[in-house]
Parts: sequence; C-alpha cells; structure tokens
Amino acid sequence: MKTKVSIAEKHSLFDERWTPKIIAGLDNYDVKIAKVEGEFVWHKHDEEDEFFLVTKGQLKLELEGRDDVVLGEGELFVVPAGLSHRPVAQPYAEIMMIERKGVINTGDAGHERAVVPEEL
Amino acid sequence: MKTKVSIAEKHSLFDERWTPKIIAGLDNYDVKIAKVEGEFVWHKHDEEDEFFLVTKGQLKLELEGRDDVVLGEGELFVVPAGLSHRPVAQPYAEIMMIERKGVINTGDAGHERAVVPEEL
Repeated sequence: MKTKVSIAEKHSLFDERWTPKIIAGLDNYDVKIAKVEGEFVWHKHDEEDEFFLVTKGQLKLELEGRDDVVLGEGELFVVPAGLSHRPVAQPYAEIMMIERKGVINTGDAGHERAVVPEEL
Repeated sequence: MKTKVSIAEKHSLFDERWTPKIIAGLDNYDVKIAKVEGEFVWHKHDEEDEFFLVTKGQLKLELEGRDDVVLGEGELFVVPAGLSHRPVAQPYAEIMMIERKGVINTGDAGHERAVVPEEL
C-alpha cells in the first residue's frame, strides 16, 4: 500500500454485489469493501471475528440466538468468531470489512456464493 | 461487544485530544477512536502495522523518507510496521485506528504523551 485509499472512490470502481475486494492490508488481515444487496447466506467463521462498517445505506446482521443488529452509515459491529450470522442489505449497502487473510465470505457454509477476494 | 457502535456517537462522549478510546475488539486487535488537534510526536511501532481512517476533518501523516499522506473524511492509510511517522491534524480531526492490543500510541518514543487506551 503506497498511497492513501478513499473508500468511496474504491467503491466507484466496481458494481458486483457480494464480491469483496481487498483495498488494504493490516498485518495478517485484509481490509475489504463490498457492495451488497438483498440477502446473503447464513454462515459462521469458527476462529475469526468479522468486522463490519457501513459506509453507505443500511445493513442488517441477523445473528443466531440474538437480536438483529441494523447498521446505518458510520456504524460498525464485530461478529464474534463462531456465531452464525446472515447479512441482509436493506435494500442496498456499501460496507467495509476486516478479516484475517484467507477467510472466505461464506465461512463454513461453502456455497456457490463463495468468492476469493481480489485486490482492487 | 453486545451492540452496534456509532463512530460519531462515540466521538461525542469525550473531548480529550490524542487520547485513544477503545470502541470494539477484533480478535487480538483494538478498534480505537481519537480526537486529534495539531502535531503528535514522531514514533514507530517495530512489529505492528497501524490503520488510520479519518471520519471528520483532515489528518496529515508525515512518513520518514516518504511523501506525506493527507487523509480527508472516508480516507484510510496503513502505516507499515517499522516506519517512523508523525500524525498532524490540520487543524482538527476525528479518527479511527486499528492496532494490535497492547500497542502504545507513542510507539518506541516513550513520551509524556503516551497513554494506555481505555474502553469507551
């Protein structure tokens, strides 16, 4: 990472939904962004917490056995390791995530919507 | 962390400058915010990268041997481990940082401005 990163500018570079793009690295973690719309799949990451920050729109995080968390712009939540969750954009959101490198978006669910994030 | 966190709301809870407050945790990392004004001290963290995101105002990061990076709202930069840097708010900024737990704000500099971050 040689220069600063504008989150909004990076979001302007792609249109795919639910396709995380890596915009920076922090030690062994990836900083990623995604455009999300509608429902994702229930999944969990056994060993890794997952950081979500909404930069545009609204994202609901459905959490197994707990109340939903609804994030607006400038709001964040960390899904604890091992907790099943399902992100649902209402109806659309732009988000920033931070996860340990190698974490796959669908976690334990394995799924046709699993993608390996690429650098943007 | 039981509920979502609004970065702006957390910033409204304190007024000290250069005094990081912990607002969330991610694995072995702290998510912190700070209000910053004027110049900080030159320092580095030998082993840890340091993530900066500006949520209000403007922050210049002076970097040893490299061009300055000037961050506006919604812009981020990761200072690589081992690189000496000096944050300078121009004239004021609200920032979010992510660093490994236990990292001290003044790094190797030791300094009267070193503070142990507390949870907000």
